[in-house]
Amino acid sequence: MADQSNPLPLDCGRSIWPVEVEYETYGTLNPERDNAILVFHALSGDAHAAGWDRNAEHDGRLWRGKRPGWWDSMIGPGKGFDTRRYYVICSNVLGSCYGTTGPSSTNPETGLPYGLRFPVVTLGDWVSLQRRLIDHLGIDRLLAVAGGSLGGQQAMEWALSSPDRVRGAIVLAAAPRLSAQGLAFNAVARRAIMCDPGFRGGDYYGETSPEAGLGVARMIGHITYLSQASMAMKFGRQLRNGNRLGFGFDPEFEVEGYLQHQQQSFVERFDANSYLYITKAMDYYDVATWGDGDLARAAMLSRCSWLVASFSSDWLYTPEQCFEWTEALRSAGRQVAHCDIKSSYGHDAFLLETAQVTGKVAAFLDGLK
Amino acid sequence: MADQSNPLPLDCGRSIWPVEVEYETYGTLNPERDNAILVFHALSGDAHAAGWDRNAEHDGRLWRGKRPGWWDSMIGPGKGFDTRRYYVICSNVLGSCYGTTGPSSTNPETGLPYGLRFPVVTLGDWVSLQRRLIDHLGIDRLLAVAGGSLGGQQAMEWALSSPDRVRGAIVLAAAPRLSAQGLAFNAVARRAIMCDPGFRGGDYYGETSPEAGLGVARMIGHITYLSQASMAMKFGRQLRNGNRLGFGFDPEFEVEGYLQHQQQSFVERFDANSYLYITKAMDYYDVATWGDGDLARAAMLSRCSWLVASFSSDWLYTPEQCFEWTEALRSAGRQVAHCDIKSSYGHDAFLLETAQVTGKVAAFLDGLK
Repeated sequence: MADQSNPLPLDCGRSIWPVEVEYETYGTLNPERDNAILVFHALSGDAHAAGWDRNAEHDGRLWRGKRPGWWDSMIGPGKGFDTRRYYVICSNVLGSCYGTTGPSSTNPETGLPYGLRFPVVTLGDWVSLQRRLIDHLGIDRLLAVAGGSLGGQQAMEWALSSPDRVRGAIVLAAAPRLSAQGLAFNAVARRAIMCDPGFRGGDYYGETSPEAGLGVARMIGHITYLSQASMAMKFGRQLRNGNRLGFGFDPEFEVEGYLQHQQQSFVERFDANSYLYITKAMDYYDVATWGDGDLARAAMLSRCSWLVASFSSDWLYTPEQCFEWTEALRSAGRQVAHCDIKSSYGHDAFLLETAQVTGKVAAFLDGLK
Repeated sequence: MADQSNPLPLDCGRSIWPVEVEYETYGTLNPERDNAILVFHALSGDAHAAGWDRNAEHDGRLWRGKRPGWWDSMIGPGKGFDTRRYYVICSNVLGSCYGTTGPSSTNPETGLPYGLRFPVVTLGDWVSLQRRLIDHLGIDRLLAVAGGSLGGQQAMEWALSSPDRVRGAIVLAAAPRLSAQGLAFNAVARRAIMCDPGFRGGDYYGETSPEAGLGVARMIGHITYLSQASMAMKFGRQLRNGNRLGFGFDPEFEVEGYLQHQQQSFVERFDANSYLYITKAMDYYDVATWGDGDLARAAMLSRCSWLVASFSSDWLYTPEQCFEWTEALRSAGRQVAHCDIKSSYGHDAFLLETAQVTGKVAAFLDGLK
């Protein structure tokens, strides 16, 4: 979707034009146009939420081999978001590198990629753009908005910024805002990218890119998505080559090899500038700003039903932090179901505990119909 | 202390010569030579454990201004390690950059700094060298060995490798081995250093050093030393410049500024190669290897009394992990007191909970006299 005539105003005070939005849909919009669910991807995701059939290359960035959508376990016929009943929409966020306008897009003022001249965007800006997409699709009111992590925060933002356009909000593994520890991890990630000599102040397109820095950023991210317990179970202290120590500095433990592999495949498919912009949006988000710092006052703006799920071993958005939002909704008299799901998978649990999440989501959506 | 005639055999199969050891002592060795306590520093420490009067510059590496020893809160007249009664010794570990031979030392084979030609050393090697120092000081049997974190693991290693030379072992905030998550953080830290173009395969002496990579490594380390709770209390989501968002990529939250400052002062005082060698030794250490993988069998080798302390918010060496060693000692019938200290300071608690630690240490040492 391209809109070349209507600049998008942004929270920073600037506006942006032109703006392209990459999106995918699954299922069929019913004649009443009231079965649409908007789902949101997290930091490194894209609009390809479900199905296996998408071209593996996009914008010159390679995904290794064919791959399912990032939420394929949840979206499809008979799944949690049942595409026999619902029309599911997913769009790539503003600032990302998978089709929606971002720092790698051409700056109309220079004819060159934006780089760091791209405006710093917020979750509010992401939602503004998504609202245009929903208008464009002729949908007045969404049956539900849903996502995990940064995606769950977009669901919050939709419910508060457009209370009349959302009937239900599904928020998985997402707190009202990022903790100081989370801010710290993002700060290190950005530092790793920006101090890579290949970064060149963000103007590296067409040159060598800051792959090393982006790789380090991704390794840090991965540690925060897993948990102490899941890493112990998955890798322990296992060595890659039998049980002899190597007495050198090549990756030697299984967990080192895993992180090495993860960062390598990530730098082939993601843009370093987008990593900066999306983590910054993640840092800035605080749903309490809707209530001048007061969560319960913010919660009063919503008119939808809520499903909130936290995951016991999640240490990026801990259950305690997730419960803060649920408590705010309750104290504001809003209808909210909170599921505290027991899982050892850490933050990734929202993508992996499919059986537990499916039942909760399906029942919640049923209740909205 | 220099020993130029007696190469030190190492676990990797190589040996090293010459070897210099930087050490400091506090208090007086009594005529019976039975009041000596050997304390061990952790990753980034040095031999300067107590007092304020040391020259602030060492080997060209600057400490900003005068500073107390890293365990000054615990070592001195009337303190936990009471220097009116005890003779306290602290030496810098092999592979470090504060006086003891390490990768920045001159390789006698080339006349140039070792760099990565320095052998990969282990905690066992550190203790071998410390044993030579204790021999050199004419001490047959130590009243106690003591340390926190990597220092606590050196205390374990002493107690198992020289059971007849240790009467008491004090192990603070140290588990039998590093977890998969801990290995992962060290792997990212080393990756950040080694992919810095300034690293030059370790041969950067006299050139620009891999400061950016070392800085990132230090930032990661700092996050693991604090806790979710202590970071929330200390920084929260406070912005450095009032309450307006900057919409840019300079460090903006208080916690970002803090990490930025920490890494900056660290790169001025620490050697990147030493960071590689010391984290590798940390990764390799597993006290269970003394029992062919069985902790209780390893524990049976010791003949000393033990004081083990864990700290409730420590997530680098968690209380659960620390208790594993205590349980092993108990099942081996060894005398052990375990203190599980409630603290919000995270791993750093062993340095900060002075009041609680002092009482336990003083009483334990009293019991040994």
